[in-house]
Amino acid sequence: MTRDIKSLIAQMTLEEKASLCSGLGFWDTKPIERLGIPSIVMTDGPHGLRKQVPGSQNFFDSVPATCFPTAATIACSWDRSLVREIGIALGEECQAEGVSVILGPGVNIKRSPLCGRNFEYFSEDPFLSTELAASYIEGVQSQGVGTSIKHFAANNQEHRRMSVNAIVDERTLREIYLASFEGAVKKSKPWTVMCAYNRLNGDYCSENHYLLTKVLREDWGYEGLVVSDWGAVNERVKGLEAGLDLEMPGNGGVGDRKIIEAVCSGELSEEVLDRAVERILKLIFQAVDNRKENFRYDADAHHQLARKAARESMVLLKNDNSILPLRKEGTIAVIGAFAKHPRFQGGGSSHVNPTRIDIPYDEIQKAVGDSARLLYSDGYQLGSDEVNQSLIEEARQIASQANVALIFAGLPENYESEGYDRVHMSMPRSHLELIQAVSESQPNTVVLLCNGAPVEMPWLHDVPAVLECYLGGQAVGSAIADLLFGEASPCGKLAETFPQKLSDNPSYLNFPGEDDKVEYREGIFVGYRYYDTKEIEPLFPFGHGLSYTTFEYSDLSVDKKSIKDNEVVNVQVTVKNTGKFAGKEIVQLYVSDLASSVRRPEKELKGFEKVELQPGEEKTVNFTLDKRAFAYYNVDLSDWYVETGEFEICVGRSSRDIVLTEIIHVDSTQVIPKRYHRNSLIGDLQEDPKAAALFNQMMQQGLANTPFASSGEFNSEMIMALLRYMPLRALVNFSGGAFSEDDLNNLLDQLNSAS
Amino acid sequence: MTRDIKSLIAQMTLEEKASLCSGLGFWDTKPIERLGIPSIVMTDGPHGLRKQVPGSQNFFDSVPATCFPTAATIACSWDRSLVREIGIALGEECQAEGVSVILGPGVNIKRSPLCGRNFEYFSEDPFLSTELAASYIEGVQSQGVGTSIKHFAANNQEHRRMSVNAIVDERTLREIYLASFEGAVKKSKPWTVMCAYNRLNGDYCSENHYLLTKVLREDWGYEGLVVSDWGAVNERVKGLEAGLDLEMPGNGGVGDRKIIEAVCSGELSEEVLDRAVERILKLIFQAVDNRKENFRYDADAHHQLARKAARESMVLLKNDNSILPLRKEGTIAVIGAFAKHPRFQGGGSSHVNPTRIDIPYDEIQKAVGDSARLLYSDGYQLGSDEVNQSLIEEARQIASQANVALIFAGLPENYESEGYDRVHMSMPRSHLELIQAVSESQPNTVVLLCNGAPVEMPWLHDVPAVLECYLGGQAVGSAIADLLFGEASPCGKLAETFPQKLSDNPSYLNFPGEDDKVEYREGIFVGYRYYDTKEIEPLFPFGHGLSYTTFEYSDLSVDKKSIKDNEVVNVQVTVKNTGKFAGKEIVQLYVSDLASSVRRPEKELKGFEKVELQPGEEKTVNFTLDKRAFAYYNVDLSDWYVETGEFEICVGRSSRDIVLTEIIHVDSTQVIPKRYHRNSLIGDLQEDPKAAALFNQMMQQGLANTPFASSGEFNSEMIMALLRYMPLRALVNFSGGAFSEDDLNNLLDQLNSAS
Repeated sequence: MTRDIKSLIAQMTLEEKASLCSGLGFWDTKPIERLGIPSIVMTDGPHGLRKQVPGSQNFFDSVPATCFPTAATIACSWDRSLVREIGIALGEECQAEGVSVILGPGVNIKRSPLCGRNFEYFSEDPFLSTELAASYIEGVQSQGVGTSIKHFAANNQEHRRMSVNAIVDERTLREIYLASFEGAVKKSKPWTVMCAYNRLNGDYCSENHYLLTKVLREDWGYEGLVVSDWGAVNERVKGLEAGLDLEMPGNGGVGDRKIIEAVCSGELSEEVLDRAVERILKLIFQAVDNRKENFRYDADAHHQLARKAARESMVLLKNDNSILPLRKEGTIAVIGAFAKHPRFQGGGSSHVNPTRIDIPYDEIQKAVGDSARLLYSDGYQLGSDEVNQSLIEEARQIASQANVALIFAGLPENYESEGYDRVHMSMPRSHLELIQAVSESQPNTVVLLCNGAPVEMPWLHDVPAVLECYLGGQAVGSAIADLLFGEASPCGKLAETFPQKLSDNPSYLNFPGEDDKVEYREGIFVGYRYYDTKEIEPLFPFGHGLSYTTFEYSDLSVDKKSIKDNEVVNVQVTVKNTGKFAGKEIVQLYVSDLASSVRRPEKELKGFEKVELQPGEEKTVNFTLDKRAFAYYNVDLSDWYVETGEFEICVGRSSRDIVLTEIIHVDSTQVIPKRYHRNSLIGDLQEDPKAAALFNQMMQQGLANTPFASSGEFNSEMIMALLRYMPLRALVNFSGGAFSEDDLNNLLDQLNSAS
Repeated sequence: MTRDIKSLIAQMTLEEKASLCSGLGFWDTKPIERLGIPSIVMTDGPHGLRKQVPGSQNFFDSVPATCFPTAATIACSWDRSLVREIGIALGEECQAEGVSVILGPGVNIKRSPLCGRNFEYFSEDPFLSTELAASYIEGVQSQGVGTSIKHFAANNQEHRRMSVNAIVDERTLREIYLASFEGAVKKSKPWTVMCAYNRLNGDYCSENHYLLTKVLREDWGYEGLVVSDWGAVNERVKGLEAGLDLEMPGNGGVGDRKIIEAVCSGELSEEVLDRAVERILKLIFQAVDNRKENFRYDADAHHQLARKAARESMVLLKNDNSILPLRKEGTIAVIGAFAKHPRFQGGGSSHVNPTRIDIPYDEIQKAVGDSARLLYSDGYQLGSDEVNQSLIEEARQIASQANVALIFAGLPENYESEGYDRVHMSMPRSHLELIQAVSESQPNTVVLLCNGAPVEMPWLHDVPAVLECYLGGQAVGSAIADLLFGEASPCGKLAETFPQKLSDNPSYLNFPGEDDKVEYREGIFVGYRYYDTKEIEPLFPFGHGLSYTTFEYSDLSVDKKSIKDNEVVNVQVTVKNTGKFAGKEIVQLYVSDLASSVRRPEKELKGFEKVELQPGEEKTVNFTLDKRAFAYYNVDLSDWYVETGEFEICVGRSSRDIVLTEIIHVDSTQVIPKRYHRNSLIGDLQEDPKAAALFNQMMQQGLANTPFASSGEFNSEMIMALLRYMPLRALVNFSGGAFSEDDLNNLLDQLNSAS
């Protein structure tokens, strides 16, 4: 159904327009009944609906919904189609609950492992993050439900999130923090973009014209609506002018009045208001037109999808002597309160009331049936970090009686939440001492980690196997059982680096900032870009994950050895399952600029594919690389730029396990104009053939008189360096006046007209 | 003799004044004969005179002078009185050569080990650097000769040094890069300060008002003259206004004419010119009045001083099984061309024509006499990095025939020079392969390193002993022999960190910058401040150095456990020589702020003393710590500020070998005024008792209606965090209008008048 939105706006009073620019209550827009404009509902996401129970006064009392694994978890699937499936399921649940927009995905980059909300975000890498976000958005929106990609932008910590000013240079923004949004916004056209709480380079994101208009609309061509994070509006009128359309939640009329006053006083053009109203009406009608009344979703099917998602995302970090998968026999000691009270999601606005929960202990019991005997001990108390020696002793006892011990450990619920950051990367001492005690009495100990972000693992060398379950959603228990007993092979790989210690992290010296300012001094060197370039050995590298089977790579080929930056190159590689289990491999492609005049990361992810292979099977994996795969953001050009030269294409199992490489040449089609001035260096002229010719001609006339020309004693490197780094203006002085200021100006005129 | 400089200036024409503001030729000022104003001569330093031979056309043809160890070397002595002695000797040589100002000391901080000129600078630590610089200046100036502390400021690389713009935040400047000048300028009043070539935060140092006037004169009270580095002037008039007095070298009249034109056009006030002329005249007459005609210095005594300086500066990095000192017996294989052609200084303007050279091989021969037999092999070719297998084979042969092998290795001359930086930290492959081959055939191998800056040592575990000789000056050979055979015990300690690899260095991601810009993104985290805080294990830490004897520390005490920041605390510690050799110990005192609201280094050097102890002897070492020992530079206050709290005083043998600690409390006497605004956080109010009382009263009235007040399900950490990080303005919206904008403004008025 098409409507004439322009004519609707023409019929609206100024008060009606202003009123439409903020919520009715906490979760809905304002209706205007006389014009037939309905209200629509938004709810928190991203990995499940958090819709407040109608009529309930409790903000956190929400209707049951499928709790899928959080973004940190499903990112480890590296599986676009899986994420799309989850999106579809979320869209269905929204339709069933009459929700028009789900507030997700969250695509903020994991700058520090400490950020309290990392569990809601995908990755430290913008390419992986934006690809998965695009799939999520496609999935949800295919069901006629909108998304809200968030939090735009540079909201990489909870500490002082509503006031902190993130200082980020533009290259870093474009290559890392904005890039995580860019691909998804361009490809999947989310109905809404949610601006963040924090300030970016001085201005609140809710009133940041660079972000909301220059980047989002002018550079990326975004045509949807911008909504504030809940409570992110600072100055309502400034926000409207910068490109913020809808203020949420309702403001008790305060913001609306400011808009009216600003229009009346002439401070705000009514056209700006109309533009926002138009976008809000478009959203409302888009939602209404796609509403499916009386929709029902299949909760069982969604639960099974949650189980599959968890199973395909968990990461086998270590598996010495192939201790996993376990056989269903003997005695198995199940240890850790998380086995009976699993941690499967994080705290804050994303907290879902699950439709059901698969308890790990129960699912293990179900899996082994009568074939094996289970022993159980809590090992630690929930809700307390205190070391409980009697629980540890009990755990040690049952571990020593068993053939294998499974320890469920990680981070307690209050360690990870929206609203605050961690201050260290340690697990509670109660968990650490438990692992130490159990591993001493049982060599066959498997640690199952439940946590939304990396932890330090001082115990790593004491146990043969570690399965990183992250926050696995409501089917966490059954997914774990599937993997433990080999119903499926683990096939997740890390979407973030696990550093050995917190101080290794690139943001360590500048997180979470001082006063109300956080400087992103590490720049583009985020995650593996930093660890690789600084040659710091991580605990587990980005992209790492083991399988029960093995994969071999061969026949890497490129269809062109040399391209122009406006052409593409196609890359092929063959992957073969050489083990005895069926499995899936995540093939990763990184690009490395072999020589560059600007600092670049050692390599950057530019492609990935997940392939399923039966034992003995092989498949060819294809990648297509375009300009962006080789480019950096050139701030002077305000554009992506490929510096002509050689690039290495690196294909492998992880960022630190590159198996095959190929070198190709890329030629730039962009010319960077040169402009010479009195402080241009002689060395720079020498690198520009036209300028060098002009200059050398002049040299023969004038420079012979300089003191440097006659000195024989010194090594030529020094003399050449002195000249190389000497500005043109120095020739005036060093020539003793033989080369005058006028001569210099003439030379500059010639240089600048020649180039 | 006092002169009426004001009246002299009054007699000068505008042309005469302008002419005085630049050199006559390369090394002298312009005389004005009609007014009896003579010319004075300056020459390069810092570790020896480089005075061009009168009449010679060759810039680098200089008169013989004692070549002392370079600053990188003597910094390792940590010996104020030794450095003062060297200063006195340099002053004497200046008097003998009719030189009025020696262009040193160089106090730039070693930001990167790659800086080509590091050998001319003292340290990565500003306290050590400025203390030694002060002693140098006192020494030279006690002889009636001026100094020129340089290069002011942030000239921490040679790459593009005449155009590069160093971007350094003010706290970093004040605490690190300027601090290296500050103490020396205040304490020792150098006759001149030399401004650097580069730009600092946009402006050339030669025309940087912040540097040359705000910091130097207004904040530090400097009353001497500012001279340009040779060729550093960009815009002469702008420089004069910013505080640059004397342009060097002569400019062929170009700069002088610009000054005249600017005064005539009214662009430049003649008072500004007069101020510079006054300072230049003061310098000239100060020099002339202190001139000692027909002065002769004792070249032998200076050579012996150079020997002592080298001996007291070389650093014994490693000495497994006390392989050193050597006994004068058996067969000693001396290997490496540096043994016969020593590297003892660096390239560039500091390159001295030595009065004589002690050749290591000859001095070793002299030391052993007939008691031991020497074998010799070049091992590598001078002037080539190529691996010479036959030389290596020869070296291996003689090593295997000997009882001990001494390998002279390090960095060839063209690796280190003014004018360009290194691009890696490796020694030449010819040296590396030599060490490998020799150490394989002779377990008793001692490596003697000759180099002006750290190198990577992949061979470190293959040899039992390493003596870091740095660049030892003309007596390098005799000093090495003294140490090798135990005439003296090594007593130098590193004035800089030796990292394991280049990528560990804090500036690695931002050195030497891009285009014409280098950002000091590591900020205050330079040298050990970075390695300690980031917990990176160095190859050898700052302050490290072994002895032939052992020292024990005891009885650390402080005279007060609690002080105000305007009081001092006295610290005592007892050091005892517990070994069998006489020796000297460098006792180091670091201060660590145990809790701070701003990022601070793990610890910082705030005191050091070198004590000589006979076997069995003990001495008490005293330190006095004042405000500055506990303060950081608070940019908002534009002042040094001590945050009230606990500080740990750490005393030890090196930055990584702290032996004793004491905790004291320091109370600030400064009050930082508070100012609340609509985006002040509720949590910040709660930390301010007056503000908290006002706010909580308001809470009880209005905030009970917010949705957050009634939610019971969530953990309190999250709720508290939400409130803690919530700006006051959010209350207006979240209270649904119950708390209005007017209420907010009233609250702010009350808060700001109460505080």
